[in-house]
Amino acid sequence: MKDMSSVVKMMPLSVGLGDRSYPIYIDQGLLGNAELIRPYITGQQVMIVSNETVAPLYLEILLQSLAGFQVATHILPDGEEFKNLEVLETLFDALLRVPCDRKTTMIALGGGVVGDITGFAAACYQRGVPFIQIPTTLLAQVDSSVGGKTAVNHPRGKNMIGAFYQPRCVITDISTLNTLDDRQLSAGLAEVIKYGLIGDLEFFTWLEKNIDRLRQRDPEVLTEAIRCSCRSKAEIVAEDEREGGIRALLNLGHTFGHAIEAGMGYGNWLHGEAIATGMLMAADLSHRSGWISRMDVTRIAELLVRAGLPVVPPAELDIEHYLKLMMVDKKVHQGRIRLVLLKGIGNAFISDDYDHLLLQETLASRTLF
Amino acid sequence: MKDMSSVVKMMPLSVGLGDRSYPIYIDQGLLGNAELIRPYITGQQVMIVSNETVAPLYLEILLQSLAGFQVATHILPDGEEFKNLEVLETLFDALLRVPCDRKTTMIALGGGVVGDITGFAAACYQRGVPFIQIPTTLLAQVDSSVGGKTAVNHPRGKNMIGAFYQPRCVITDISTLNTLDDRQLSAGLAEVIKYGLIGDLEFFTWLEKNIDRLRQRDPEVLTEAIRCSCRSKAEIVAEDEREGGIRALLNLGHTFGHAIEAGMGYGNWLHGEAIATGMLMAADLSHRSGWISRMDVTRIAELLVRAGLPVVPPAELDIEHYLKLMMVDKKVHQGRIRLVLLKGIGNAFISDDYDHLLLQETLASRTLF
Repeated sequence: MKDMSSVVKMMPLSVGLGDRSYPIYIDQGLLGNAELIRPYITGQQVMIVSNETVAPLYLEILLQSLAGFQVATHILPDGEEFKNLEVLETLFDALLRVPCDRKTTMIALGGGVVGDITGFAAACYQRGVPFIQIPTTLLAQVDSSVGGKTAVNHPRGKNMIGAFYQPRCVITDISTLNTLDDRQLSAGLAEVIKYGLIGDLEFFTWLEKNIDRLRQRDPEVLTEAIRCSCRSKAEIVAEDEREGGIRALLNLGHTFGHAIEAGMGYGNWLHGEAIATGMLMAADLSHRSGWISRMDVTRIAELLVRAGLPVVPPAELDIEHYLKLMMVDKKVHQGRIRLVLLKGIGNAFISDDYDHLLLQETLASRTLF
Repeated sequence: MKDMSSVVKMMPLSVGLGDRSYPIYIDQGLLGNAELIRPYITGQQVMIVSNETVAPLYLEILLQSLAGFQVATHILPDGEEFKNLEVLETLFDALLRVPCDRKTTMIALGGGVVGDITGFAAACYQRGVPFIQIPTTLLAQVDSSVGGKTAVNHPRGKNMIGAFYQPRCVITDISTLNTLDDRQLSAGLAEVIKYGLIGDLEFFTWLEKNIDRLRQRDPEVLTEAIRCSCRSKAEIVAEDEREGGIRALLNLGHTFGHAIEAGMGYGNWLHGEAIATGMLMAADLSHRSGWISRMDVTRIAELLVRAGLPVVPPAELDIEHYLKLMMVDKKVHQGRIRLVLLKGIGNAFISDDYDHLLLQETLASRTLF
């Protein structure tokens, strides 16, 4: 009899979406846990999508867990600049070369780029095949692998072409964080800090206490931070899957951040880095609007700095350039840019009723704290 | 007070899909009926997609019905060979050049290719914007505009990349059929005949009586044929939106037909032409299997011929080529090709339990009746 202890010891989180609900497993050593993964494969065919950085590290162990299935792999180049329609097309070509049928399970093994492209390909291939998220970066583990947002970028805007498409399950093996470089780890911490900022002051305070241990990759605090982040996201997604309302709070810092990413050229600023600076810009505008104190802004900036994140907007972008980039954001409605702003740490809200002159001051400012 | 008689005189059909239900309006002169169309536009922005054949004929009158909205247009080249990812990308470029926000309503004004590309673009643009189908070919009016299947082709297979995405409404202005060329009209009749074959002997018999008047474009019999076809399709889609079961019956002739279309090069055989020959191949295999009589096959062939449709498979494709093309069809499961076959006229069923040797005989045969 097989030892099932490794399967049962974890209680997965759950994203509650009726008949499309799915579990999030968070633990060490899950990639090699065949008993955990195999029940989520429907059909006989599997297409694993990874990238040139992650595949040499983790593809082999995943393949062992999938012994007996008919497995194909497709390796993408590494970087946000490859999250585009051309690279997506190479994935469709690979699926049809096999050819994969419409019961094929697609597996995303990698960071947010791999997850977003694979999820979107799964949404479109033969009008939808099942897929599994195995995120290997902190950013993907706490954010992009959960909630079903999939997309590719367009030169004129980030995530402009995509779908809401939920995975069968999310398998977060925190052992994969051991090989993540420091800059990527910090980028992930930006999204972790976001959950504190938007709705959980207690978690924000916990992060202030534990930020150094997180950067040292203490597995216990990492697991705790990831669980807490995923729980927040799962609750929000269950309430508002298609971003009709509350889900938009998860975009704190993203309208500013997307403009930085696009304006500086995808791949130069990491997504998490742009979001960190973007969150501070949102805090700055909130302060200029009289909603939070200067001390709150400083407190946020300090945590971001301790997390190893940039807090100075790029000098290359002027107000006009920012506004042009922000106007193509998905949150624009009838010419008004809707922003997520703060009424306090742990208290975000959505507004298009801010003073446009104050927004311009924020965009012009190079010192935010 | 406005004259609303033109709005209220029709009882639309309805596709029953819960909160995504939508009406199908079928009548003459609907393109100029602003009161009918305008309530289905959400937001201020509209993107009309049409093609170089249809736009010169019908774009102007539709634009007049949309006076006051912020309307952009995107004109595609005409033909199935343009239903691909490259052309789709030009549409995304156009949407982002405006830029269109995520409340933009997309309108497909054209045949099946325009509808399929526009619907898929609407499904993906900013992860989904509302869209309206205004089909202008008989084939699109009785088939592709209803039911939410959207897609583009891949060199290795038809409709391989797409989404299930329902329109807000379908507006079928049968006046547009006056400018349709005879070959396209016949291609549409193939799908009309399909509804008789799969489940409605009475309708098939009605078609045998009225096929000449249909080809003469008698508006009364056209309206009746379109209503009856759409009603059949709406019932099937309401029961099985994502083709888990009964919806697959709508693919009668399509596995053979897709192989002909792909094998002969998209655009050389019209979709409806390939489906006509494909249905006769399905009938031939059904007869070889002992399920229908030789007389049934002849009766089907005669109606197809009278409808102006081809009934001789192309000499260019041999068995091996057919099988290779059919193996990438979406209906393949674990290496078995699932086919829609006939137990009688008006009685189709799905099977992967046919004799493979008989299939090879059908594929090798050039005379099917």
